[in-house]
Amino acid sequence: MTSMKKTKPSQNILIVAASEQDANLYYATRFIAPDPFVFFNIRGTKHLLMSDLEVDRAKHQADVDQVHSTSKLAKAYRERTGERPSYIDLIADFAKQRRVRRLLVPADFPISFADPLRKRGFQVEFKGNPFFERRTVKTKEEIQAITRAIRHVETAVGLAIQTLRKSVIRRGKLFYRGEKLTSESIKKIINVSLMENDCIAAHSIVSCGAHAVDPHDQGSGPLYANQSIIMDIFPRDSKSRYFADFTRTVVRGTASPKLKRMYQAVQEGQEIAFRTVRAGADGHTIHQAINKRFEELGFPTGVQNGRMQGFFHGTGHGLGLDIHEEPSISGRPDILRAGHVVTVEPGLYYADAGGVRLEDVVVVTPAGCRNLTRFPKYLEI
Amino acid sequence: MTSMKKTKPSQNILIVAASEQDANLYYATRFIAPDPFVFFNIRGTKHLLMSDLEVDRAKHQADVDQVHSTSKLAKAYRERTGERPSYIDLIADFAKQRRVRRLLVPADFPISFADPLRKRGFQVEFKGNPFFERRTVKTKEEIQAITRAIRHVETAVGLAIQTLRKSVIRRGKLFYRGEKLTSESIKKIINVSLMENDCIAAHSIVSCGAHAVDPHDQGSGPLYANQSIIMDIFPRDSKSRYFADFTRTVVRGTASPKLKRMYQAVQEGQEIAFRTVRAGADGHTIHQAINKRFEELGFPTGVQNGRMQGFFHGTGHGLGLDIHEEPSISGRPDILRAGHVVTVEPGLYYADAGGVRLEDVVVVTPAGCRNLTRFPKYLEI
Repeated sequence: MTSMKKTKPSQNILIVAASEQDANLYYATRFIAPDPFVFFNIRGTKHLLMSDLEVDRAKHQADVDQVHSTSKLAKAYRERTGERPSYIDLIADFAKQRRVRRLLVPADFPISFADPLRKRGFQVEFKGNPFFERRTVKTKEEIQAITRAIRHVETAVGLAIQTLRKSVIRRGKLFYRGEKLTSESIKKIINVSLMENDCIAAHSIVSCGAHAVDPHDQGSGPLYANQSIIMDIFPRDSKSRYFADFTRTVVRGTASPKLKRMYQAVQEGQEIAFRTVRAGADGHTIHQAINKRFEELGFPTGVQNGRMQGFFHGTGHGLGLDIHEEPSISGRPDILRAGHVVTVEPGLYYADAGGVRLEDVVVVTPAGCRNLTRFPKYLEI
Repeated sequence: MTSMKKTKPSQNILIVAASEQDANLYYATRFIAPDPFVFFNIRGTKHLLMSDLEVDRAKHQADVDQVHSTSKLAKAYRERTGERPSYIDLIADFAKQRRVRRLLVPADFPISFADPLRKRGFQVEFKGNPFFERRTVKTKEEIQAITRAIRHVETAVGLAIQTLRKSVIRRGKLFYRGEKLTSESIKKIINVSLMENDCIAAHSIVSCGAHAVDPHDQGSGPLYANQSIIMDIFPRDSKSRYFADFTRTVVRGTASPKLKRMYQAVQEGQEIAFRTVRAGADGHTIHQAINKRFEELGFPTGVQNGRMQGFFHGTGHGLGLDIHEEPSISGRPDILRAGHVVTVEPGLYYADAGGVRLEDVVVVTPAGCRNLTRFPKYLEI
């Protein structure tokens, strides 16, 4: 889904989106709004076209050169042409007045803007992510923001593990202070702790037993002793808007021999990444090396008994203003650069044993990588 | 941004998006995934094309007819053609094999999929929201889900108001148990209470004084006595995925005479909507009537001293799987239908007095509307 075009300084950029959902637009403007607005970069000058509702706030908060009121632009248009402009008319007129004919837009630019702009004579080209190359290379401040968010997850998961540790096992299920522990109750402990630290966790995974065999099952129902519990937590820090991403797997009670071997293999998989992630390394090569090691250890990947088993997701992905962003450490080639912040999250999933995933976040450096995650790794609690 | 085309039953639909961010895709599939996937409705049969990571979960959870594995489709493609398909190749091939040449897509369909599909000979047309007409007309279950979320907001705001009431005024600022009350601390009370009820509040507004004059200022810093405090809270219930939307304005201490008159006017504005919202009514007419009444009461709208003042946002919007959806009660015509769920949220904002907004949520009925919000309205606390 990414094209190979590079942004030339001479290219004029158009984004129409709600920055609350669009990390490229937020990155370009550092302005948050829930409804779509228009961003232009024309010969290096950043413009916003804002509704009456947002125009004053944008003037104060947005990191751009000029903020224009769409109602003033509409008034001027009416006075000049005698016609009431549509939203597209305003965008087109704004660009034409500035002698712009070619527009570079992100890959997710809406067809409903591209088509009418082309009808009005604009040449609209798209560029895949990273739309802004610089977004993948994190500054010191960005790395600090991600690290802060990770610390908050570590606090939250620490509370969850305390509760699991203190739980009592009755007929194979976990109880705490007389109440049955569930995926939902542990998620609540984690999510409330995160919210107390201004971090918003939207789809936290706390999955146990059969649920944990599916990497994206969010988990539900009772938690069982002697089965793996995967906790994969990826909140956004609502102050900085940067994400954390964190996974640990634990067993309350005793893990089966296979589960223990899987855990060791996954730890070894992480170590392979920690040794080989560096500026210039290819994510694909790292991912393949982990896959190969898993096979050597007797953990193959593929369809078994009608479902995917083994290691069937990527090793890692970029992390920042989006939870999944460039680069990737996965089945497709992608060269790592110093300043990339990536997850390292191999996992193994077998229907007869459960799921194991461990995830840390590292910064790519010229000579290797630096782990931002501190939380210890242990299986049985 | 909406076109007038209707979805004909014969039209084949394509959506490529991440359902976590795309309410149309979630509505069509009731399946949540963080990364983009492919949805087709071909002659009434719903298909998903899913990665290895999601294919099994989709089979269990998605409300569709057929779930296809992209890796199996890719294998079959390679065996047939000898070539390794791109993601677009797979989508195009899937459609061609089913003799589809015309595709209807949502208005936010990405240019990076539209362009290459057109190059491959597909006719790609877009339709604005409501993409699925039925999505605007809520079922009993959907109304219950929205109502539950509103109750959770009422609980949370109740806690916040309790704290404000108990606060002590020192040199014009509010203190609670020795600590200075701030926008941030009140938001935390609200957001944590919501998270305890599985509701995720992402951009809660608690704004006071000068901040409250800007309707979308989220608020920050100390809370002041004798000034209006706007609390606008709009969480998503993480179980149902439906939103609540709720606003109250209070003053700790004594409101100025102008603020009191503004509050009464805004309440009167709400009453105009409660009397006139019904199936068949035009949102634009309702909005205009409120505007007119505000003017009569001496509260004009427009730029004063270089900034927008008065009532410069819509009266209301549809509420559901998106926080802002169709229909609108605003400056543009939009006919209400029975089963629409809309906010009623007039407001007045003046730099010399502060901001006032009140927001309830109503269901449109054949004869009028039913208010889902119960929380009382009072200014001074």
